[in-house]
Amino acid sequence: MVTRAPLRPVATTGPVLVVGTGLLGTSAGLALSAAGVDVLLSDTSPTSQRLAQDVGAGRPVAYMGAEGPTLVLVATPPDVAGGCVVEALTHYPGAVVTDVASVKSAVVEDVLREAEKTGDPAIAARYVGSHPMAGRERSGAGAADADLFIGRPWVVVPHEGSSAEAQLVVRTLATDLGAVPLEMDADTHDHSVALVSHVPQLVASLLAARLADAPGVALGLAGQGLRDTTRIAASDPRLWTSILAGNAGPVVETLEALGADLEDLLVHLRAAVVQGPLEGGSVGAVNRVMEAGNRGVARIPGKHGGAPQRFSEVEVLVPDRPGELGRLFTELGEIGVNLEDLTLDHSAGQQVGVARVMVDPARARDAELGLERRGWRIIAHWSTEGS
Amino acid sequence: MVTRAPLRPVATTGPVLVVGTGLLGTSAGLALSAAGVDVLLSDTSPTSQRLAQDVGAGRPVAYMGAEGPTLVLVATPPDVAGGCVVEALTHYPGAVVTDVASVKSAVVEDVLREAEKTGDPAIAARYVGSHPMAGRERSGAGAADADLFIGRPWVVVPHEGSSAEAQLVVRTLATDLGAVPLEMDADTHDHSVALVSHVPQLVASLLAARLADAPGVALGLAGQGLRDTTRIAASDPRLWTSILAGNAGPVVETLEALGADLEDLLVHLRAAVVQGPLEGGSVGAVNRVMEAGNRGVARIPGKHGGAPQRFSEVEVLVPDRPGELGRLFTELGEIGVNLEDLTLDHSAGQQVGVARVMVDPARARDAELGLERRGWRIIAHWSTEGS
Repeated sequence: MVTRAPLRPVATTGPVLVVGTGLLGTSAGLALSAAGVDVLLSDTSPTSQRLAQDVGAGRPVAYMGAEGPTLVLVATPPDVAGGCVVEALTHYPGAVVTDVASVKSAVVEDVLREAEKTGDPAIAARYVGSHPMAGRERSGAGAADADLFIGRPWVVVPHEGSSAEAQLVVRTLATDLGAVPLEMDADTHDHSVALVSHVPQLVASLLAARLADAPGVALGLAGQGLRDTTRIAASDPRLWTSILAGNAGPVVETLEALGADLEDLLVHLRAAVVQGPLEGGSVGAVNRVMEAGNRGVARIPGKHGGAPQRFSEVEVLVPDRPGELGRLFTELGEIGVNLEDLTLDHSAGQQVGVARVMVDPARARDAELGLERRGWRIIAHWSTEGS
Repeated sequence: MVTRAPLRPVATTGPVLVVGTGLLGTSAGLALSAAGVDVLLSDTSPTSQRLAQDVGAGRPVAYMGAEGPTLVLVATPPDVAGGCVVEALTHYPGAVVTDVASVKSAVVEDVLREAEKTGDPAIAARYVGSHPMAGRERSGAGAADADLFIGRPWVVVPHEGSSAEAQLVVRTLATDLGAVPLEMDADTHDHSVALVSHVPQLVASLLAARLADAPGVALGLAGQGLRDTTRIAASDPRLWTSILAGNAGPVVETLEALGADLEDLLVHLRAAVVQGPLEGGSVGAVNRVMEAGNRGVARIPGKHGGAPQRFSEVEVLVPDRPGELGRLFTELGEIGVNLEDLTLDHSAGQQVGVARVMVDPARARDAELGLERRGWRIIAHWSTEGS
């Protein structure tokens, strides 16, 4: 774990109260503290809170002065986020409150219900939701880092009653932590993450689950495609169970549409089993699914946030020996070709790997010739949609 | 395209007849010709055959001498493989015949049917199937390469009546092309590829299809998980339609099991929509899917073909500037740490990427300290199941 000062001076003024000293809360505390902001820490677990203090994320909440916080960051597990947000709004009438839960509609509902109950719309005006998209396999204060949010999207989620001031405070927090703020209402946010994150997680898990009791010989034929498609199935069940159950509505909508496509495909494939591969409409059904998949994957933005870019791809054989990959990149640098992206492809039992190096199409030929001159084996090159 | 002599002398004796001069047939022809084996080429498309001849994959089939081939490699599209195999067995009574179709049961059935029809079991004895696992996005003779099969698994698929000699000839071909032969019966093979290749392809396409008409704001939140899970949805529909329709039985079995898991999940998530996130059994249902996914993904072999290896993972921030990735690998080399694997992680709108560098756990601390001394920002490090 490394802590460093952020890249630029921060505009957030303290004190900031961080409620929940897990990965996200502690990381935010580290970055703000390093920038000189007064950060107070609170967690239901004294051990967790102590750990966050010890790594330098802030002071205990007991040291909070009478003036109270200007900003409360609720970074608890998602199933208690709504309750903690309402408590913070009630307890600290001068504070803007935000939370990092990855599902937003439920929290907004809790806040609006409280405002109605108390007859005080000002409570709701001080709430603006957040979803910093900075996940990580490890959790807890021990995995925290001041750099966690740098360059990551941070969705700012105001509701209709959120004050302009509260929105500015939350947007400033995101920017101060190095994140890239973008704005969305709660419903749009929850449907969006169902589509690009929650359903892909479930589908990867459903697919990987088929391997749990599969014969070993089948697994021996696994290639890079299977590895890529199931990689996120290794994610933490506890974390995801809470997230997914909390966004059941949008997740069900997308899963049902996928299930309908699957059922249509199955009808035609079952017919092919009985009538033969060219009968029963299976060719057309498979083709429809594949074509729709082509169209969908082409819409995923490239790494710079724009439309997918056209790259040239050069496939290079890389012997499975220490230092070979390093030599490849060094020599690409010598040739003067910038690497746009790369993937490594290993299959079971291989003594060599294949590096797919994506470069500017205008430089692909130079890359290929230069690498060949240096003794590399080029397998192929072509233009492709980079991601 | 590059052609070079194979790494070692070959044991295959010619003449070898290659039927179908697409990517696989032409690549095999190139490697065998370069090793001095007499290769004859045949294709229903004169243009395709001519291209294969011109790149050096072999001579026209018209030059075939009266002795006929010792080995016929049928490398046609899968939907005509069975017919071509039967024709070769009939036409060249001295030849061992193999084919590269990625679904094997249908070809075996065609061969056995012919043996029964003609009352000549010797025909079937000369057939042994193959499935070289050397796919590629581009097809055709123009994409061919003598190195295509190097290090790739090559499934040798004898049937009960295959002669020992025919099996040896096909296994020798695989080895001569640099592939790693493994043996499997047709039914086991077809179920295995359904599980690790065909169903993952369909599932990735079904998932990506959900993005085809999705709102642009949702796509803006796409991260590396979505990119990985849907990468193979960009595959060629024509090629896959033929493969998938030809293996409908095993594909249906696996898809139906996946569909049943999906329906169980949907029942509980629908209940959660009505009753709230903690009701209706949704927490348990999601957890079951996630846990099964964890177990399944843990069974995918590591890159050296054994059980998954334990690596340490060091996450490094890489500024989005030319040459930075090259510098990272060069400096890892200077530190004396061998790179076991890596992934690059970019999100929309980022000015930095994250490289996840996998190293020997015993060297992780050195890697981290050495990189930090050279000015790199380490975000985190931990042990993980490498792939």
